[in-house]
Amino acid sequence: MIVTLTTDFGTTDHFVGVMKGVILSMAPGATIVDISHGVPPQDVRKAYWILRETVFYFPPGTVHVVVVDPTVGSDRKIIYVKTRGHRFLAPDNGVLSFIAGDAIEEIYEIVRQNHSGNFSHTFHGRDIFAPVAGQLLQNVHPRQLGREINPETLEKIDIAAPVPFRDGIQGEIVCVDHFGNLITNISKSLLEFYAVEIFLGNIRLLQIHRHYSEVPPGEAVAVFNSSDLLEISCNCGNAAQKYGIGEGTPVRCVLHSKTGASATDDEKCN
Amino acid sequence: MIVTLTTDFGTTDHFVGVMKGVILSMAPGATIVDISHGVPPQDVRKAYWILRETVFYFPPGTVHVVVVDPTVGSDRKIIYVKTRGHRFLAPDNGVLSFIAGDAIEEIYEIVRQNHSGNFSHTFHGRDIFAPVAGQLLQNVHPRQLGREINPETLEKIDIAAPVPFRDGIQGEIVCVDHFGNLITNISKSLLEFYAVEIFLGNIRLLQIHRHYSEVPPGEAVAVFNSSDLLEISCNCGNAAQKYGIGEGTPVRCVLHSKTGASATDDEKCN
Amino acid sequence: MIVTLTTDFGTTDHFVGVMKGVILSMAPGATIVDISHGVPPQDVRKAYWILRETVFYFPPGTVHVVVVDPTVGSDRKIIYVKTRGHRFLAPDNGVLSFIAGDAIEEIYEIVRQNHSGNFSHTFHGRDIFAPVAGQLLQNVHPRQLGREINPETLEKIDIAAPVPFRDGIQGEIVCVDHFGNLITNISKSLLEFYAVEIFLGNIRLLQIHRHYSEVPPGEAVAVFNSSDLLEISCNCGNAAQKYGIGEGTPVRCVLHSKTGASATDDEKCN
Repeated sequence: MIVTLTTDFGTTDHFVGVMKGVILSMAPGATIVDISHGVPPQDVRKAYWILRETVFYFPPGTVHVVVVDPTVGSDRKIIYVKTRGHRFLAPDNGVLSFIAGDAIEEIYEIVRQNHSGNFSHTFHGRDIFAPVAGQLLQNVHPRQLGREINPETLEKIDIAAPVPFRDGIQGEIVCVDHFGNLITNISKSLLEFYAVEIFLGNIRLLQIHRHYSEVPPGEAVAVFNSSDLLEISCNCGNAAQKYGIGEGTPVRCVLHSKTGASATDDEKCN
Repeated sequence: MIVTLTTDFGTTDHFVGVMKGVILSMAPGATIVDISHGVPPQDVRKAYWILRETVFYFPPGTVHVVVVDPTVGSDRKIIYVKTRGHRFLAPDNGVLSFIAGDAIEEIYEIVRQNHSGNFSHTFHGRDIFAPVAGQLLQNVHPRQLGREINPETLEKIDIAAPVPFRDGIQGEIVCVDHFGNLITNISKSLLEFYAVEIFLGNIRLLQIHRHYSEVPPGEAVAVFNSSDLLEISCNCGNAAQKYGIGEGTPVRCVLHSKTGASATDDEKCN
Repeated sequence: MIVTLTTDFGTTDHFVGVMKGVILSMAPGATIVDISHGVPPQDVRKAYWILRETVFYFPPGTVHVVVVDPTVGSDRKIIYVKTRGHRFLAPDNGVLSFIAGDAIEEIYEIVRQNHSGNFSHTFHGRDIFAPVAGQLLQNVHPRQLGREINPETLEKIDIAAPVPFRDGIQGEIVCVDHFGNLITNISKSLLEFYAVEIFLGNIRLLQIHRHYSEVPPGEAVAVFNSSDLLEISCNCGNAAQKYGIGEGTPVRCVLHSKTGASATDDEKCN
């Protein structure tokens, strides 16, 4: 009986503790796992990236509670979705867009508590998300918590896709992690059969390495990361800080035939 | 068997891990919940606010351990208090002032270990708080851990109360949360029957909204927060940073009759 | 069935949540305890200090997983070590040097998964450390996970030892904690039979106090900390910030006979 929490609440204030208190009052044996409370305030996109990298490593049946909710208190929906055996409880603001292609098993708008009088308009984590999570952990069926909705109606966020250009592929930095690694939206499958020349800001890299320490400390390095996305890093350093590069910066990958020499390059470049 | 921890230890060093190791060595099945380790160093007042918002959402029987303890090692008392079914272990420095009005169920000064020789003078979290919490979780009766004291003798901190002035109420900012929301000490019950004009620094607000997103992103908004306190925020922004306002800043609420128009205002203002 | 985690992953990204998901998928009843995820990136030495202060407060049998791993993906070893009843899983980079003097109970290089094809080169926390921890919690014997190695071959980090000089002992600041306390490598046993004069940057202290608040707030104070190391602090303040002192700064302790007056001082100083 596992419940995960992903919020933009930080860990200094009472917010997270209160949610845990409410959940443990209803489901005393629950295992509560913090995925992240460091989502920047109101940053639905960052929460999306964290969740999509994390949630399916938990065992099926896990309840994932997401409270990154810029329009708390408004008439935005709170949704319960079950997919791939996992149960999600989140505001309907696109934060769950990574399940957009799934064959949804269950989907409900939470309404039961949403229209009772006795809850705040600023802290639904305490007044709706945590108690509903507690009920799910008590095996209350979600149909008792809301009304079924059409998965097609879910809000989605736009995730930039890489685009082809004359001699390669252009993507962008979609995430900067704690280490300052610059993660792109360009997946290994788009590059792996080519010799790649990478342009990012002032950085030009001619090779994709297997791991960071294949280059000397302090040097830029491109790798395919643990999600098979192209990542530009600085071995034992912080690439984001060193090169002054952040989310949204374009990355250009010029593709050459793998066996090709300069002749091939010329061919490609003309 | 739940124990919560609230400290100013941060989460980088060994302090919190050590306390958990000690507790789990004594009570292997304990559920340990972090309320906050982000209390600013020695900030008893901030710990007070966090605790009062959080602790009673946990189930009765929970042991709440508080180690925000500027005079660790001195002859300040360590106290055990039981109230509303909850058990508290804290330095006697006013951090538990929110239970001041309660009918206390049990109250002891911890002395058993306090006068044995084998403990440090700088890390009572490890040497007294955690082992005593472990004993409480093992159902050792607190009378075996100390001597009963008079609840009247507990230290208290002064919490600023709002004061009436000619045409309204003056309070102050008592907390700034992770989002930069500015929380006042003025409760809903003091304002709800009036039309309110709010003055805080350069901000003047003529309305109390239900939730943040009733105003456009980036604009100031007043709401009653989840504890029914007046809060001044910036929708999708950080009010504390934007307006340069922190704890202690005065807030003035001019009260008008709710049905009143400008005539009433004149009446009130003269 | 306790597993502790110590990493440089921070708590914002997906890294820690993913490891917990993997572990809980394999060992659903595990108690996972965060020791620290705030180790500065790649700072093996800081991880060493945190671990040595913490791990043995947990009950024997605990699995301690350490992922501070600057050369992840390279041919550095991943090791399993059992000592004093505790089980450790860490990169072989010296982070476990605090067990160097122990009579090791079990020691293996993890190889089983290390040479299968299906894991990343940048996130062994997910692909090796967490699954191996899961197996250890399932009571898989470490011999099934790797091959026995010679404890003499383990990497070690150099930890500065204090050195004698003409009239005393010279050490250095080896750790700065969350409070800005300056922790030296000079242990109580080297000083306790002497009257000590301490020189650190511009600070000169003539006494070692029992606890911080024996001096007025804001003043420098020397104490023996909870690990019986000499620590220079600022009562209710941040000594590191106030005095601009960090790790590596030398500390000089001039030793005088405890009963001695100025005559003795003269004797010692010539």
